Amino acid sequence: MARIARVDRIPMADPSDTHAIQTLIDQRQILPTDIVAILGKTEGNGCVNDFTRGYAVQALRTMLAPLLAPEQIDAMPMVMSGGTEGGLTPHWIVLSESTASQDEADSAAALAFASAITRALEPSEVGRPAQVALVRNAVAEAMQRAAIESADDVHFVQIKCPLLTSERVAQANGDVATGDMLKSMSLSRGASALGVAQALCELHDDHINAGSTRALTQTAAAIGKDWSQWSARASASAGVELMTCEVVVMGQSHHWGGRLRIAHTVMQDAIDAPAVQQLLTGIAGSDGLQQGASNILAVLAKAEASSTGAIRGHRHTMLDDSDISSTRHARGFVGGLLAGLIGHTALFVSGGAEHQGPDGGGPVAIIYQT
Amino acid sequence: MARIARVDRIPMADPSDTHAIQTLIDQRQILPTDIVAILGKTEGNGCVNDFTRGYAVQALRTMLAPLLAPEQIDAMPMVMSGGTEGGLTPHWIVLSESTASQDEADSAAALAFASAITRALEPSEVGRPAQVALVRNAVAEAMQRAAIESADDVHFVQIKCPLLTSERVAQANGDVATGDMLKSMSLSRGASALGVAQALCELHDDHINAGSTRALTQTAAAIGKDWSQWSARASASAGVELMTCEVVVMGQSHHWGGRLRIAHTVMQDAIDAPAVQQLLTGIAGSDGLQQGASNILAVLAKAEASSTGAIRGHRHTMLDDSDISSTRHARGFVGGLLAGLIGHTALFVSGGAEHQGPDGGGPVAIIYQT
Amino acid sequence: MARIARVDRIPMADPSDTHAIQTLIDQRQILPTDIVAILGKTEGNGCVNDFTRGYAVQALRTMLAPLLAPEQIDAMPMVMSGGTEGGLTPHWIVLSESTASQDEADSAAALAFASAITRALEPSEVGRPAQVALVRNAVAEAMQRAAIESADDVHFVQIKCPLLTSERVAQANGDVATGDMLKSMSLSRGASALGVAQALCELHDDHINAGSTRALTQTAAAIGKDWSQWSARASASAGVELMTCEVVVMGQSHHWGGRLRIAHTVMQDAIDAPAVQQLLTGIAGSDGLQQGASNILAVLAKAEASSTGAIRGHRHTMLDDSDISSTRHARGFVGGLLAGLIGHTALFVSGGAEHQGPDGGGPVAIIYQT
Amino acid sequence: MARIARVDRIPMADPSDTHAIQTLIDQRQILPTDIVAILGKTEGNGCVNDFTRGYAVQALRTMLAPLLAPEQIDAMPMVMSGGTEGGLTPHWIVLSESTASQDEADSAAALAFASAITRALEPSEVGRPAQVALVRNAVAEAMQRAAIESADDVHFVQIKCPLLTSERVAQANGDVATGDMLKSMSLSRGASALGVAQALCELHDDHINAGSTRALTQTAAAIGKDWSQWSARASASAGVELMTCEVVVMGQSHHWGGRLRIAHTVMQDAIDAPAVQQLLTGIAGSDGLQQGASNILAVLAKAEASSTGAIRGHRHTMLDDSDISSTRHARGFVGGLLAGLIGHTALFVSGGAEHQGPDGGGPVAIIYQT
Repeated sequence: MARIARVDRIPMADPSDTHAIQTLIDQRQILPTDIVAILGKTEGNGCVNDFTRGYAVQALRTMLAPLLAPEQIDAMPMVMSGGTEGGLTPHWIVLSESTASQDEADSAAALAFASAITRALEPSEVGRPAQVALVRNAVAEAMQRAAIESADDVHFVQIKCPLLTSERVAQANGDVATGDMLKSMSLSRGASALGVAQALCELHDDHINAGSTRALTQTAAAIGKDWSQWSARASASAGVELMTCEVVVMGQSHHWGGRLRIAHTVMQDAIDAPAVQQLLTGIAGSDGLQQGASNILAVLAKAEASSTGAIRGHRHTMLDDSDISSTRHARGFVGGLLAGLIGHTALFVSGGAEHQGPDGGGPVAIIYQT
Repeated sequence: MARIARVDRIPMADPSDTHAIQTLIDQRQILPTDIVAILGKTEGNGCVNDFTRGYAVQALRTMLAPLLAPEQIDAMPMVMSGGTEGGLTPHWIVLSESTASQDEADSAAALAFASAITRALEPSEVGRPAQVALVRNAVAEAMQRAAIESADDVHFVQIKCPLLTSERVAQANGDVATGDMLKSMSLSRGASALGVAQALCELHDDHINAGSTRALTQTAAAIGKDWSQWSARASASAGVELMTCEVVVMGQSHHWGGRLRIAHTVMQDAIDAPAVQQLLTGIAGSDGLQQGASNILAVLAKAEASSTGAIRGHRHTMLDDSDISSTRHARGFVGGLLAGLIGHTALFVSGGAEHQGPDGGGPVAIIYQT
Repeated sequence: MARIARVDRIPMADPSDTHAIQTLIDQRQILPTDIVAILGKTEGNGCVNDFTRGYAVQALRTMLAPLLAPEQIDAMPMVMSGGTEGGLTPHWIVLSESTASQDEADSAAALAFASAITRALEPSEVGRPAQVALVRNAVAEAMQRAAIESADDVHFVQIKCPLLTSERVAQANGDVATGDMLKSMSLSRGASALGVAQALCELHDDHINAGSTRALTQTAAAIGKDWSQWSARASASAGVELMTCEVVVMGQSHHWGGRLRIAHTVMQDAIDAPAVQQLLTGIAGSDGLQQGASNILAVLAKAEASSTGAIRGHRHTMLDDSDISSTRHARGFVGGLLAGLIGHTALFVSGGAEHQGPDGGGPVAIIYQT
Repeated sequence: MARIARVDRIPMADPSDTHAIQTLIDQRQILPTDIVAILGKTEGNGCVNDFTRGYAVQALRTMLAPLLAPEQIDAMPMVMSGGTEGGLTPHWIVLSESTASQDEADSAAALAFASAITRALEPSEVGRPAQVALVRNAVAEAMQRAAIESADDVHFVQIKCPLLTSERVAQANGDVATGDMLKSMSLSRGASALGVAQALCELHDDHINAGSTRALTQTAAAIGKDWSQWSARASASAGVELMTCEVVVMGQSHHWGGRLRIAHTVMQDAIDAPAVQQLLTGIAGSDGLQQGASNILAVLAKAEASSTGAIRGHRHTMLDDSDISSTRHARGFVGGLLAGLIGHTALFVSGGAEHQGPDGGGPVAIIYQT
């Protein structure tokens, strides 16, 4: 018997529209108990006052309430990422797991995933080394659950992490990484990404990788500052609705069967189409644009404005625009690039890539069918 | 002796920064009298209250005032297009013309351009068949000036056209195409594009192409309504600062020499990367992404949100977003696609593509060096 | 026995925060079956893609699900109005009705309210005379339920009405008032307001007032065009989530007891503070600013940008701002004026005042305690 | 002979429209050499990428070029403040000075003003005690020029001050108050305001007031942090176009004649209408709303969102809105309040009130005619 991953990319008419998920459940194509996690790309601004994320989670919970026990629902990561700028399409991605008798021909490593949730953080821990350590441990735990044996077999780690509000700052008597709400989103995402990088031994400083006591100071110094330290496989979103960190690890494992696979690359900057095209060529076995799109089940990417204010020496205006947040600009722009290469717009492009890929770039993972 | 086209793409630190143009003039690389037109991609919102366009024109006029006679400045089209969403780069494009002894080896058709300016429109003519006719004639006039012999040799026509304000509506005693300022921008762009399409015989209705009296009704019925009528080479921007239409025709002619060329394609939708890549492959002689970028002098493109609310069947949210205009979304998204294919971000992507390419798509022209 | 109106203005930490309403129910201060309607001022953009309204309704329904039968919930108007620009405060207003033995001293007319819901409109009826007639009848029905005997005793009518989406337009085979979603919001609000005006005999054209067959053409001609026709007591919001019109009539009646009262005025333009101050002076019995605020339970107002582009001859920029919708500008601006006069910011200021007060102005109603 | 102040509030059709100023000059109502300073309220976003300020200054300089020597233009403060949210009206305020034979009856203290410009700041000085000291000295210098004898006679000090860009940060080798551009605007405004407060002895810490060496540390600790330290008369705007601080001091002096006067108050929070009404009552001699508006020549005010996220205990959403900057919200909201009290919308309401009035409040000054 092998574990089999299933991935459904499902349209959403508005943030509360779970209708198409419900249909799959009604048709018994997905068993509610098989669902490992639900990701959603919702059409809000992706920033502080983006209520489409909470609205979508509320709708999912309402839909699942008659189908699962409350603790099962609580244990299911629901990672909503706001912002479908440009031509991007709001959609759900449902990850589910079933078992099947192993087809012998199917002995290649296949898509594998599992989740883990940290304990609730104290406000004083958000965006600080404690969060790095908690995420590192959760990644290890989820890898074990997913039977992914090596860090090299991990291709994407999606994290939903907390942020600081004025109430939480007060609760910590001001002993917090920052008193600024928007800044706390950035630090929380950054700390989560460094946790992934530690777990996957991606940092060039082995002391930080090791997570040793001695490394604590270096880690603290890196969060939100040393952009040379980054994970090629982390994708973190911060939200007001939780104090835990929810971690979904995706990779490949011989313990899993079926025809699904995952691969990833890193865009070195916001226009690094060649890196993505090389990944797509490997998947499609053809180097034409938009080839093999029908085999692609999900695309997960991070985008951000380079902190230098330039892309390959040409000035960009994303950081100076007081009307539109730079994260909105970056999602739409990188979304256009990816959609042009892939041939459709239902892409999970998420903004705010602190320590997630190099400055101005970001990880891209693709789940596909062989 | 042959006419020689020169194209300079020049950085801009802010909408008033003409410093780098000034330097080229000071170094006598460009003679002020050789300048045919100046295009600018400025960092405003590209919509009604985008004052970066007027600011840039004011700065250009101030810079040119000591160098040219007032009537020379007045006769020079200065086409500012607002909006550098995503990673796009604000920049100037200076088109100039000089003469040189014809190099025999250089007998291929080369880049050719010229401008024409219509008489001032009456407010009652904006967005109506009269504007179509005036632009059609101006395109023909500019083609003649540029010694471009056939409509097939025209690859791009950039138009700057007027819009209606409440004062202008009053002046016409309400006999106007629309009383809404934003809508008048759309109708004026559309009428200009249909004028180009007539001049280049691009419309599938020959009556409209001919511009016959009988065609007037059909033309009137088409403006802003029949999206199946479009030009593959028109690019129109509307601005409050003029009542004329300024037309710059770019194409190829055997009467011009030098190593510059122009080619164009049409994106059928917002993610039609293959069309652009095919054009680039022809230019670079290689089908790799971002090949031959160093030979590309200027990229001129139009982008818009499809009126259907979908791209290849996937929903987009550009038309429902009350925080960001759909033209801003479209520029950033198509800008990302083009930058990924070409390898840099200094692209003249303009929004609002009424009758400029099919619904949701748009023309793309590239000026390059052989 | 007399009917007694109760009005609770309740804080909201985010659009899903029904906690404080729940507390009042838990404490048996409000019986769920007593609730007549719930209004909410939520912190979205108040325009097309404002999902805070749907989120709030979803939260209310979830909270009420264990307390009321589904048909009771369906019959309860939940009128969410998006937009708390400037210093405005998101809040709920819960209207409930109970009975008490009539205190003889309390024989004055007291606050009275009731609701009515029209049948579902056909898409072809939205923004057209059919909607006017349906709303007119619903106002009459709600007045009867509230035992408000004369139109003069009505002080505010809050309506929630539908809008057109592309699906609904298709459903009507294009036989609709407009194909534009944002425009349909405007026409639907306008038709609702004219329905109120008819019911309350507020129009200066008696034919339209009468709603006679002959008046149909005149009514159709007035909707969205003749701004001289308006109601001094209508407040309409359009939302995607319904096809009926939900009507809540508020007024005074001798059949109701208790110490609550309602009064209204009309701001003639966006800075008509004297009209509001006069109303407040009548309520507080004192002409100082911010006097008697503690007796004021709820403030309901409409705001909009004058279509002339000016306020008392001075230019405003609300209609030319492509970054911020004019409805957002107007709510914040009028909100500041009202908050300054009244002394707090929990005011239900709603935007888009078509046929609701004169061009650029709007109705203001105040519920207070004697 | 007495010095006579003249104040013209002049309409502006767009940021480059100096036409109405030109007319006053052509009519010899204002002599160019008499102009002390020009203020402008322009219709941009008032934040980082607000180019309407630079556009307006460029237009003023172009208009003045044929009338004044370059060094006279350079010495004239041109303080543009972006943002006319809500119903606010873009306008110019021209301050000019002439002399007249003293009318004996006119022996009361009259409006007096003068300007001073500091030396160019080093980038390392922006937002730090050095800026505080420079502004303090410039205020003293301008007071002397204006013959304002006592700090108590100063009613408003308008400052235009620099901000930090990435180039300037690099120039200082990173020895700067902040590397963040938007933050540097805040610190620069704050340091300027504390400079005014020192000059006018407004701080409750006498050591800081004195500007003693010992006070340096305390001053440094206060900038951008200790909001209990503020000036009731400072109004600072930061702009990219200068490295000096331009200071315009307005007050009253017996050395000046004529019928103009100035008075000020402080709004304790964003809805402190009573404070403003009291000021207006003093001016108009009547306590009705909108009385005496015709005597009011100019209104200068600061507005900001309270850092607590609440106004008198009610939550506001200005700081959580990622679509609209809190400064835009605050200007529109306070603008509505002031316009309601005064009766017109041509008010110079400026955002970002660090150390300018208490947290969430701000100074208001009125120039009027007796």
